[in-house]
Order: sequence, then C-alpha cells, then structure tokens
Amino acid sequence: METIDSIKRLEERMARLKGQGKEIGLVPTMGALHEGHLSLIRRARDENDVVVLSIFVNPIQFNRKDDYLSYPRNQDRDKALCFREGVDFLFVPKVEEMYQEGFSTYVEVEGLTDRLCGASRPGHFRGVTTVVTKLFNIVRPDRAYFGQKDFQQTVVIKRMVRDLNLNVEVLTLPTIREADGLALSSRNQLLRQGERQVASALYRSLLEARELFAFGIRDSRRIIQQMHDVLHKAGIFRIDYITLVDLESLEELEGARAGAVVALAAWVGNVRLIDNMTLEEVTSQLKARHKLGVNV
Amino acid sequence: METIDSIKRLEERMARLKGQGKEIGLVPTMGALHEGHLSLIRRARDENDVVVLSIFVNPIQFNRKDDYLSYPRNQDRDKALCFREGVDFLFVPKVEEMYQEGFSTYVEVEGLTDRLCGASRPGHFRGVTTVVTKLFNIVRPDRAYFGQKDFQQTVVIKRMVRDLNLNVEVLTLPTIREADGLALSSRNQLLRQGERQVASALYRSLLEARELFAFGIRDSRRIIQQMHDVLHKAGIFRIDYITLVDLESLEELEGARAGAVVALAAWVGNVRLIDNMTLEEVTSQLKARHKLGVNV
Repeated sequence: METIDSIKRLEERMARLKGQGKEIGLVPTMGALHEGHLSLIRRARDENDVVVLSIFVNPIQFNRKDDYLSYPRNQDRDKALCFREGVDFLFVPKVEEMYQEGFSTYVEVEGLTDRLCGASRPGHFRGVTTVVTKLFNIVRPDRAYFGQKDFQQTVVIKRMVRDLNLNVEVLTLPTIREADGLALSSRNQLLRQGERQVASALYRSLLEARELFAFGIRDSRRIIQQMHDVLHKAGIFRIDYITLVDLESLEELEGARAGAVVALAAWVGNVRLIDNMTLEEVTSQLKARHKLGVNV
Repeated sequence: METIDSIKRLEERMARLKGQGKEIGLVPTMGALHEGHLSLIRRARDENDVVVLSIFVNPIQFNRKDDYLSYPRNQDRDKALCFREGVDFLFVPKVEEMYQEGFSTYVEVEGLTDRLCGASRPGHFRGVTTVVTKLFNIVRPDRAYFGQKDFQQTVVIKRMVRDLNLNVEVLTLPTIREADGLALSSRNQLLRQGERQVASALYRSLLEARELFAFGIRDSRRIIQQMHDVLHKAGIFRIDYITLVDLESLEELEGARAGAVVALAAWVGNVRLIDNMTLEEVTSQLKARHKLGVNV
C-alpha cells in the first residue's frame, strides 16, 4: 500500500495504471473507518484491479465549525485497516492541497439538495459534490463506492455524474448496522453511553414504518406520526426531518409505495444522526413474521 | 472527418484513441466559425494527434432568450470549414443530448464571474463553466483552445480547471481582427452596415489606452475617461463597462501597469460587443511610431 498526500503524484500513479488497462475503484471517505467502509473496500477489491481509498475531512461540507473540528479522526488505525483490507493507494491530502489559495469553483446540484439534510445543513451538499468531482478528476476511477446510509448523498452524486458526464459508475452498498440496528457512522463515536442506547430508536422507527406499510397503511402522515412516537418514547425530541420520498427525485410522497424511501435525521445529545430504509414489496415472510410477533 | 451528435459515441471514439496513446485537442465553439476559430483549429492541429471541434449554441449561457434565438447559426458552412482545416471529429450535440430531462448540476466559479461581463450577464459564466466541464469530461482532451477576445472566459476557465483538477491544458490564442481592428466575433454578422463601421471604435479606444499608457499615464480613471470619449465620438453611448484589471484576479486597478488588461463591453445597435487588450511594457518601437504619428 502506498500512502500519498500529493495530488500530482496520485494523478501520475493513476495515469500509469490506466495506461496499463487497469480498472480503478475509489472509496471516498472522511476516515474514522468502520465496518461500513470496510464493506465498500471489499466490494471495490472484488470488482477492480486497483483500489484507492481517500481520507479527507472536507471542511467545505461542514456548515458548523464545531462539527468539523470534533469530527472523529484516527489516521493510524485507518491506515492499518486499509493495509489489512488490501487498499493499494491511500490518499490523504492536506486541506491546502485540495483547496489552493483563491479556490473559488463549486459544483452544485440544484433541487435535490434543498430538502432532507440539505434543508438543515445549508451548503453541505455543495461541499460534497465539489470534493467528489475533484476526487473523480484526480483518480479517474471506473467505479466509486458509497454507503446507502448517506442516501441523499448517493442520489445527488448519481445525478451529478449523469449531468456532468463524469463517466464513473457509482455503486451504493447496503447500510451496515450494529446488533441493535444502529447504522454504523463515524459520528457514533461521539455518542455518550446512555445516548448510544437511545440512538437505536432511529432504526426502530424505520422498522415501524416498514411494518405499517406491510400492513397496508399508505398514508405517509400516519406513518411519519408513528415514527415520531417511537422516537419520542425513546427520549428523542430534536428531529430534523422524517420523510417518505421518491428514490430518485427525493420528492415527498403523500402515499407510501414499494421502492419509496423513509429517511430521517435526528439529534441524540449533541450528535446528529441519519438513517433510512426502502419500503419493500410486502412478502409473505414479513407478514408471517409479524403474525408471530417477531421484530423484523 | 466524422460528424457525431451522440455523447456516448464520441466518448467511445475518444476512449479508443486515448488507449492508443493519441493526444487530443479540443476547440469548443458555438459555431458561425470565423478566422479566430480557424486559428484555434490550426494550433490544435499542430499540437495534437486528433482535433475535436464542438459546435453547441449553449442555451444556459444566454441570459436573454432573444440573444439565444438570434445567435448566428450556419452549420453547413461550419462543416465545410472544419473539413478543410483538418478537424477529425465534429461534435454537434442537440440541446436534449447535453441537457437531459431533470438536468440540475452546475459548475460555478465565484468572485471572478461577478464583474465585467458577469455583472451585465447574470448566469452567463455559470452556463459556460458547466458546458465546458461537460465537454472536457466527454472528450477528455489534453489541450483546449480559446480566443483571447473572450478574455474573462479564459480566466474563469483556467481557474475552474485548476480548482476542479480537470487536467486539461488551457491555451489562449490572440484575438484575430478585421483590417480596421474590429475583433472577429460571430456576433459581428448581426451588425448593420453603418454599425459595422462604428464598431471599430472599440478597438480604437483600446489603442488610445495603450498609447496613454505608453506616454506614462497610470491613472486608470483618466485612461477610461479618454476611452469613453473615443466611443462617444463614434456614436457609442451604451457602454456596459470599461475597466482596467489584473490579468488573473480580474480585480480593478487604480493604477495601470504592464501586464494589466483593458477590457470593455458596449452596444452597437442591438449587438453587444466585447474586446480587450493587454498593456505592454513600453517599447522604443511604440514610442517611435507614436512620434511619427503612425496609428499603432
């Protein structure tokens, strides 16, 4: 594994490998790697000749300075994990390397970024799309890997890739969860002990939505209300949004349907967490489980 | 020469040629080709294995619909010129090919685009940087060629290329002029006969600036005032801007200096024209010419 902090050097390495006909997979991260990231690396490993993982806590996607400063960082551990998982190039640029003096160019996806997390984190997605465009241009990957946990991000990036003809295949891999259902996130480290247990209510609220849907409830407002109740019972009251949206347009749906996504963001203590789940065709298995009173 | 209207097909052609190690030069145009464009093609021809010329009247860079609709189009003549000049690929996408249903991603260079033409044409540069990013991603050229006549555009594109790591060498070639100094522009076709003669005053006003500079005048306001006088005398009163700016930051300069750029935009009839000139170190030749009363 080669660790690189220079854009120019990474570009040279990538140009040489492309010239040899190698296929390149990119896993863009902000570090503090967890099993979710590792699942992306493993898939990239399977599908490409070369795997590049970037670690860059991107200042321009943070709308609050304290959030940027407190974002978990653990580069030694990350490096060891990357080595173990067979990453070929670890890209760890400094902020000054990515944003030179006088930096002033931004990539923005309109519409899709006004809602959900975009509404409560102004400028966040502009920071994401800008840095991802840069990473795509530097690495020129054949494939790039993202987690479904950041659902809106994946929709926004796919739109950007299509609109700007970026010629990268964007793959979204399933959310990895703790035993109690909490979606893995680098931010989970910031939860205090009591909060950690409370946080699993996000997952339970999504299960509630899925069950209501399985039982034929289609009224979004009713589903969302029940989800609020689940969170309130757990002591979560600061809820940024709970919404039921179309998978591609992110438009709010009044009526739930299979393939729609239930997404939410809520604060547990000082930590803002997000999660989402796709509503699935009702299977007899799901119905059967519910009849048996098993938590799905 | 192959004429292509499909993005996918052009991408395939470019991928094959890149695989063969060919170097690609791109000349992005809006058609209605003139000697200025031809000078770009010839230079691209000299420096690359393959020359791609795009003709696309880009709707999102027009802030007025009438301007978009009346922009000169002459594809048959353009095609013949490209063939004659040895263009390898002529890319002529339709609007629906470049901007699919739901298109919503934009590239924006901030700051540099607020001033000069950006101030009088809101959204113009955002349209330019977005379409140029798309063209760069589709063609993946080694080099791209632009005319100095669109001075601000070249500065904005160079900044974008640097900021987004686009890995394209951007070359700016000198403005080509008519015998009376009028900068070649596709829009010149829209001038009526009397207006055509009046239009050369733009060039004369730039010469005036250069002469004043050569004679030691450094006060920008005084230079600009004299330029206004030249335009007024010719009957040009609708002046968008006349300014003296830094070559890279486009910041207005109170004091003229060698390397600074004098730029202006003014209306002649219903046609908005732009031009610019770099102030040069005063040469003895220039001084000598002036003493002889020769128009430099």
